[in-house]
Amino acid sequence: MEMEELVLNKKRNVKLSAWIQNVGGEFGSLKKRPAVLILPGGAYSACSDREAEPVASAYAKGGFQAFILRYSIGEHKTWPNPLDDYEQAMEFVIENAEKWHVDTKRIAVVGFSAGGHLAACAATIAKHKPAAAILGYAVLKKAICDFCQPGLPYPVENVDQNTAPCFLFATRDDNVVEISNTLDFEQKLAECAIQFESHIYSYGNHGFSTGEVYLNDMDICPRAKRWVSDSIEWLGEVWGRFTAEGFGKPIVCRTLNSDCEPMLSLDCTVSHLKKQNEKVQELLAELFARIDHVIEKRFGGSSAAKELVSNYKMKVLLQMFSIPEEIVESLDGQLRKIRNIK
Amino acid sequence: MEMEELVLNKKRNVKLSAWIQNVGGEFGSLKKRPAVLILPGGAYSACSDREAEPVASAYAKGGFQAFILRYSIGEHKTWPNPLDDYEQAMEFVIENAEKWHVDTKRIAVVGFSAGGHLAACAATIAKHKPAAAILGYAVLKKAICDFCQPGLPYPVENVDQNTAPCFLFATRDDNVVEISNTLDFEQKLAECAIQFESHIYSYGNHGFSTGEVYLNDMDICPRAKRWVSDSIEWLGEVWGRFTAEGFGKPIVCRTLNSDCEPMLSLDCTVSHLKKQNEKVQELLAELFARIDHVIEKRFGGSSAAKELVSNYKMKVLLQMFSIPEEIVESLDGQLRKIRNIK
Amino acid sequence: MEMEELVLNKKRNVKLSAWIQNVGGEFGSLKKRPAVLILPGGAYSACSDREAEPVASAYAKGGFQAFILRYSIGEHKTWPNPLDDYEQAMEFVIENAEKWHVDTKRIAVVGFSAGGHLAACAATIAKHKPAAAILGYAVLKKAICDFCQPGLPYPVENVDQNTAPCFLFATRDDNVVEISNTLDFEQKLAECAIQFESHIYSYGNHGFSTGEVYLNDMDICPRAKRWVSDSIEWLGEVWGRFTAEGFGKPIVCRTLNSDCEPMLSLDCTVSHLKKQNEKVQELLAELFARIDHVIEKRFGGSSAAKELVSNYKMKVLLQMFSIPEEIVESLDGQLRKIRNIK
Amino acid sequence: MEMEELVLNKKRNVKLSAWIQNVGGEFGSLKKRPAVLILPGGAYSACSDREAEPVASAYAKGGFQAFILRYSIGEHKTWPNPLDDYEQAMEFVIENAEKWHVDTKRIAVVGFSAGGHLAACAATIAKHKPAAAILGYAVLKKAICDFCQPGLPYPVENVDQNTAPCFLFATRDDNVVEISNTLDFEQKLAECAIQFESHIYSYGNHGFSTGEVYLNDMDICPRAKRWVSDSIEWLGEVWGRFTAEGFGKPIVCRTLNSDCEPMLSLDCTVSHLKKQNEKVQELLAELFARIDHVIEKRFGGSSAAKELVSNYKMKVLLQMFSIPEEIVESLDGQLRKIRNIK
Repeated sequence: MEMEELVLNKKRNVKLSAWIQNVGGEFGSLKKRPAVLILPGGAYSACSDREAEPVASAYAKGGFQAFILRYSIGEHKTWPNPLDDYEQAMEFVIENAEKWHVDTKRIAVVGFSAGGHLAACAATIAKHKPAAAILGYAVLKKAICDFCQPGLPYPVENVDQNTAPCFLFATRDDNVVEISNTLDFEQKLAECAIQFESHIYSYGNHGFSTGEVYLNDMDICPRAKRWVSDSIEWLGEVWGRFTAEGFGKPIVCRTLNSDCEPMLSLDCTVSHLKKQNEKVQELLAELFARIDHVIEKRFGGSSAAKELVSNYKMKVLLQMFSIPEEIVESLDGQLRKIRNIK
Repeated sequence: MEMEELVLNKKRNVKLSAWIQNVGGEFGSLKKRPAVLILPGGAYSACSDREAEPVASAYAKGGFQAFILRYSIGEHKTWPNPLDDYEQAMEFVIENAEKWHVDTKRIAVVGFSAGGHLAACAATIAKHKPAAAILGYAVLKKAICDFCQPGLPYPVENVDQNTAPCFLFATRDDNVVEISNTLDFEQKLAECAIQFESHIYSYGNHGFSTGEVYLNDMDICPRAKRWVSDSIEWLGEVWGRFTAEGFGKPIVCRTLNSDCEPMLSLDCTVSHLKKQNEKVQELLAELFARIDHVIEKRFGGSSAAKELVSNYKMKVLLQMFSIPEEIVESLDGQLRKIRNIK
Repeated sequence: MEMEELVLNKKRNVKLSAWIQNVGGEFGSLKKRPAVLILPGGAYSACSDREAEPVASAYAKGGFQAFILRYSIGEHKTWPNPLDDYEQAMEFVIENAEKWHVDTKRIAVVGFSAGGHLAACAATIAKHKPAAAILGYAVLKKAICDFCQPGLPYPVENVDQNTAPCFLFATRDDNVVEISNTLDFEQKLAECAIQFESHIYSYGNHGFSTGEVYLNDMDICPRAKRWVSDSIEWLGEVWGRFTAEGFGKPIVCRTLNSDCEPMLSLDCTVSHLKKQNEKVQELLAELFARIDHVIEKRFGGSSAAKELVSNYKMKVLLQMFSIPEEIVESLDGQLRKIRNIK
Repeated sequence: MEMEELVLNKKRNVKLSAWIQNVGGEFGSLKKRPAVLILPGGAYSACSDREAEPVASAYAKGGFQAFILRYSIGEHKTWPNPLDDYEQAMEFVIENAEKWHVDTKRIAVVGFSAGGHLAACAATIAKHKPAAAILGYAVLKKAICDFCQPGLPYPVENVDQNTAPCFLFATRDDNVVEISNTLDFEQKLAECAIQFESHIYSYGNHGFSTGEVYLNDMDICPRAKRWVSDSIEWLGEVWGRFTAEGFGKPIVCRTLNSDCEPMLSLDCTVSHLKKQNEKVQELLAELFARIDHVIEKRFGGSSAAKELVSNYKMKVLLQMFSIPEEIVESLDGQLRKIRNIK
């Protein structure tokens, strides 16, 4: 492994540590590796060592290139300094991707507490969005954002359908960053159909990092130690599994439906398509009628059934109705030429 | 193991299957076992076999007495029939606790989908509350409740501080019961300070039961198979670990603070105590002043800091301020004589 | 689940408990299930309850049909009574396979301590060999066999290439059945090319059964609790994974080579084929020469290299030499008509 | 983390890479860390990168200081060059222990294949014995040692009661280093009462390193990926658990009895004490008689029972007989003054 220590901003004391593993040679056909950009916590007044190297080792074990960003804190913490640092770091990693054997389509941010705030900002409002965000007991809501520093954006309010897929974890009894931070953020992810996974463990003090025993004075829930390997497994589902021959096929999509994409498609939900212009209504009239007919017949036209079905992706319903593949494809093709009215 | 098949209500075809393991003898000083009452899913039109025996075996492996309740469905599903069945089953188990070696303080309900709705009703509005509820991809919100059957209570609306501690799991892409069911319920649990643990796995079809491969036609997220053993571990944290010598000490409480208990105490949050009557204000005046002073000094009286601290339990703050143990105990004693004004 | 309690031999108090789970219906295309026949321990003077029901639940969780055999003990323990009981139980299960939805090609024995002795006898010398044997801290060597009862066969001395594949586990510091029982047995399995998996955990008292906390007065190594799920995973590798659509393809073979099969094949090792008759030598002369040539060229004819290569299966070497598929198949076909001289 | 690359022997191209993590500061009362010295495999003709950095990351994740030794290979491989390199590396680590925050009583070697040979030599015949050895699909027997290089010591022949505790893992179907290497070594460890743990997984190609998917072209048994975390857990049992407050109490001893220690004690086995001089026989005469009496009474003087009991530690038997603590201590004190005749 090669380690590089780079100063991104001397005045603000912003540093990027790069942990670079080899490709080729004994690593065979491996040409690029996935990467994590780690954002330690510390209420924007420090960057905790406990959430830096131990986390980098953990992802390095999984074969990732690991970068630790020590962003602007203390007197330099004024927003958007930390986010600017993030953007600069991402640009730097992307510029050096070849040299550092980084797959630029597979860079995740991993942030803890206030670093989780920064990671969530990266996932929602950054110019260089990460391909996934891992948020540990993250600061996401107004009250605790304001406490850290007035003027911080509130991540829960910035989630939209362009947000990166997220993996969230926290402990139920965290008394520094209360659990509603994680819960509210998940709500928004769900509303925007963003892919996520979440683990709320019964107990454990704030700031437990990777959960290794040697890092924690107090007992934490034994399940809380699994988040690192779980998050790596999850990244494999979102990005395709990292194998000796390159990356496998993703198992899950970034979004569960396409209601917020620029163009329409059969991956939009029924209710969303029903709200579109006349042309769309004409195109799908027969199918909408068929859906209504089935609901009428099977559920007596119950409004509850209608509401339920309206959340399905159109494509899923067509499969249920065994509509021939060529018709499905033709409809999808036509919809993809129509601009989405959100 | 002894198996008994009991008819609770012949007309409505309500049955209770009891799986009873021995105590004493080779099981040494073991006198009572914890128990689960399993409520299979099926949209109140069936009780799925896939969520019955396989689940009972899973908890039996952990040493639990297991009961499967096949509650009122189909033509008999009218509410409150299923809840009445639950109450009757619980009464039956409690009456037979000695014979069946059941620790009546350690009976959990485990419900799936519509059975998860019934389990959540048990945890919130039942006469015989379970000591914990395990809710798998549960029906908890209006839309899907109404779809199952008009007239069902909406569990998310019934959570209060008397609700049983809950363990929730679901998959992100469940397209039968959408994830907001689980998320909204957790929000309410958090608001009411109820203990819970939650796992939302990236993917897996609705109704995956224990996640065993042989039960699932489609692939599910490998982490989804851990919920059974995780829930047993969690029950051990809530109830005390089930050992050969009896039960250990619980690690977590049913509630995180005592804001909704009948009497006050130092386990109430600062904000809650500030809302109480004059007597309480007098009793705690000096301490409240001290808290304000610290916030003034350390955070320049920031309202964000005030809001954050107000969510702390009073006792936790007193520890931070190193208030002598005897004073803490005396104050707590006095508060416990004062009725809580919610 | 249906439970049946069958008396196999009234005089000797031999009983078979059957735990039968359904197929079809909600279990879809499932027609047959794999099964375990559980043989509890107790030094042939008892059948421990701790190694009976808790073990049956554990495999039932995995979807197995489970049978507990309470074989001849105490005054009836004289050999071969317990083995006769086993044979009778197996015959009974096979006879009732249809009714009990048992896949007769996928019945494993699971034995503990003295029950592990009986399981190992089943795997080595029984008429009705199980398709796999799971041996927990098993009695396998002379000293402890003799201690249990004079006249018992010594399983380590009966391993041959017809022995069933085995999964073994024990703790290093077992002071009732010392670890050499497990080690010696593994040595013999290795010599006979039988498939096995083995876990020797650092510590844990004899008789820890499934390792569940409530079953053990003393602390055991936390890894020791994994043997049940590990053994189920392993059975899936040996038998093909148990899925909703039936059984997958096995990943490992019962034997690693075919040196002890009745007929020869390219799955025999080089050294074994070299010991066969003239006809075989003629058939393979060219290939043997080629192997020698490569060893000469690459390793200077080192005898160590020769010895190493001689343990390879002939087929593996042919792959290394890129011999065309049709030649390989033709040679294999010819060898399969020649009787093996062991 | 600090990384240092040190040349130990320029002529032979021997290098030591040091991965050093901090203590103190945010790591609180942590003053020293445990360490691993990693010995990659490669048949003494290479040092595999696949068994170097990925392994170092894995232990770094657990909080260990990690050292990778690239020992003498190829033209420099003549024995004892590699062992000399090891000794030099250990001396170097010990000399720099303070600077590198290494707990010199807690340094383990981790070796793979030929590196496992070197690690086993370290554990058996080195001047600077490691406090534990982790041996992955290691070269331990004559045939494969000779193949790597004539003149190598055969580790299986060098095990004695001064050997370090060992953690071994391998796959059943390894066709480069056959499984008997691991099995024979374990046999010797058992004979010498050395603590060990062992995992033989059903399948997986030789050289699977940490088992990470990205390192392996072929499928390996899923359980094989657990050895790193298992070995860390095991080291915690042997050395005391590595916590934020330092090291806990060890759970297991280096040896299971004291039959090979320089002085006698009640931790020796019955059979060993019976072989000692007259003075010992006198001292223990009464107890020996008592043991014989119990065997006579309970087992009719069966020689099998005698043999079994003779393997018990004397102290364990005295506990069974409820001999008063003060007598036990007095006897133990007297034995500890008598030299052991092996």
